[in-house]
Amino acid sequence: MDARIDVYKALGLQLGEAHVIRNAGGVARDAVRSILISQRLLGTREVAVIHHTDCGMLTFTAPDLRNIVKSDAKSRPANVKEAIEKAVDSLEIYEFGHLENSVKDDVKFLQDNLLVLDETEVTGWIFDVKTGKVSQVAQGKLEPNLTCILRLFMLHLSRTFVSIPIDADCEQPSERTSPANEVREKHPSFSDLEQELAT
Amino acid sequence: MDARIDVYKALGLQLGEAHVIRNAGGVARDAVRSILISQRLLGTREVAVIHHTDCGMLTFTAPDLRNIVKSDAKSRPANVKEAIEKAVDSLEIYEFGHLENSVKDDVKFLQDNLLVLDETEVTGWIFDVKTGKVSQVAQGKLEPNLTCILRLFMLHLSRTFVSIPIDADCEQPSERTSPANEVREKHPSFSDLEQELAT
Repeated sequence: MDARIDVYKALGLQLGEAHVIRNAGGVARDAVRSILISQRLLGTREVAVIHHTDCGMLTFTAPDLRNIVKSDAKSRPANVKEAIEKAVDSLEIYEFGHLENSVKDDVKFLQDNLLVLDETEVTGWIFDVKTGKVSQVAQGKLEPNLTCILRLFMLHLSRTFVSIPIDADCEQPSERTSPANEVREKHPSFSDLEQELAT
Repeated sequence: MDARIDVYKALGLQLGEAHVIRNAGGVARDAVRSILISQRLLGTREVAVIHHTDCGMLTFTAPDLRNIVKSDAKSRPANVKEAIEKAVDSLEIYEFGHLENSVKDDVKFLQDNLLVLDETEVTGWIFDVKTGKVSQVAQGKLEPNLTCILRLFMLHLSRTFVSIPIDADCEQPSERTSPANEVREKHPSFSDLEQELAT
């Protein structure tokens, strides 16, 4: 949900190309309901998990956050305070300590999840908020040899899930660094393919 | 998560202005963890719940979806089939039958939720996917007399949550119909205010 990331602009997506799911941390466990609906009712078959550098989820632990909430509740009436403490203790936070591992964990979670269709191609990516570049850190099952940028473009051509995290205030990735636009520039033939697939 | 909606473009948001949470149905119950993190660690104090017309969540019931999943699992080994049935039966679907009521319910849910800060201004909106217009259907507590468009612009000036649903293939709302741009055109003085607040 990071305020620095305009997903369509950053990935060069056009309207109609992807279902975009966003939550704090880009956490796959928090997206299962949405993915289920997208797959079973709307036919998507690829999931791209994208976390980003300089992510707020790396800066705290679940106990840190729970302590903030409990501290904020100190002046509330005793019964309300107790209800808040109970609510925050039972809420999953899904913080993580290592960016690349968090993407790999999410990809494995979705690949193993019984509610995600078996034929789903799940890949994992890191978006660099400073450069606007995207790099692949977890392969799917189908096309492990495609390069990062090409793979993202392939995703770009089909319906894709994109799930992105939290934070604030940074440079805007330029149009030029959009992965889809880069591929279009370097591989003019892909523009034809794209047009063909769009019709 | 609707593929027809580019949130930044549709609402005229600039980078850094809003945390955007997106899931199937724009369901607030599925966004509590993200809202908690955004409020307690990043200081947001306003939540705009936005659902949209022609929403896929209006077209099925939870039993419909569960039956699709169970039917897809028919050919799996008995133990896998049983595990899938159990998983989908225990997953909350949060479908809704009436668009405006779904927004009002979500606003009330967040206003009453103990993990959402008491001083939070929660408002409810419907985005028309055909015209790109946004209309307010649920007032917050603080400024009930502001017009829809002005209110959205106020949200636009502060950090805002925007949560948007599911679907596919439609006209793109033009730049001109962006709520923030409309206010800028009609009220040139707001451009100054905006610049002032940005510095």
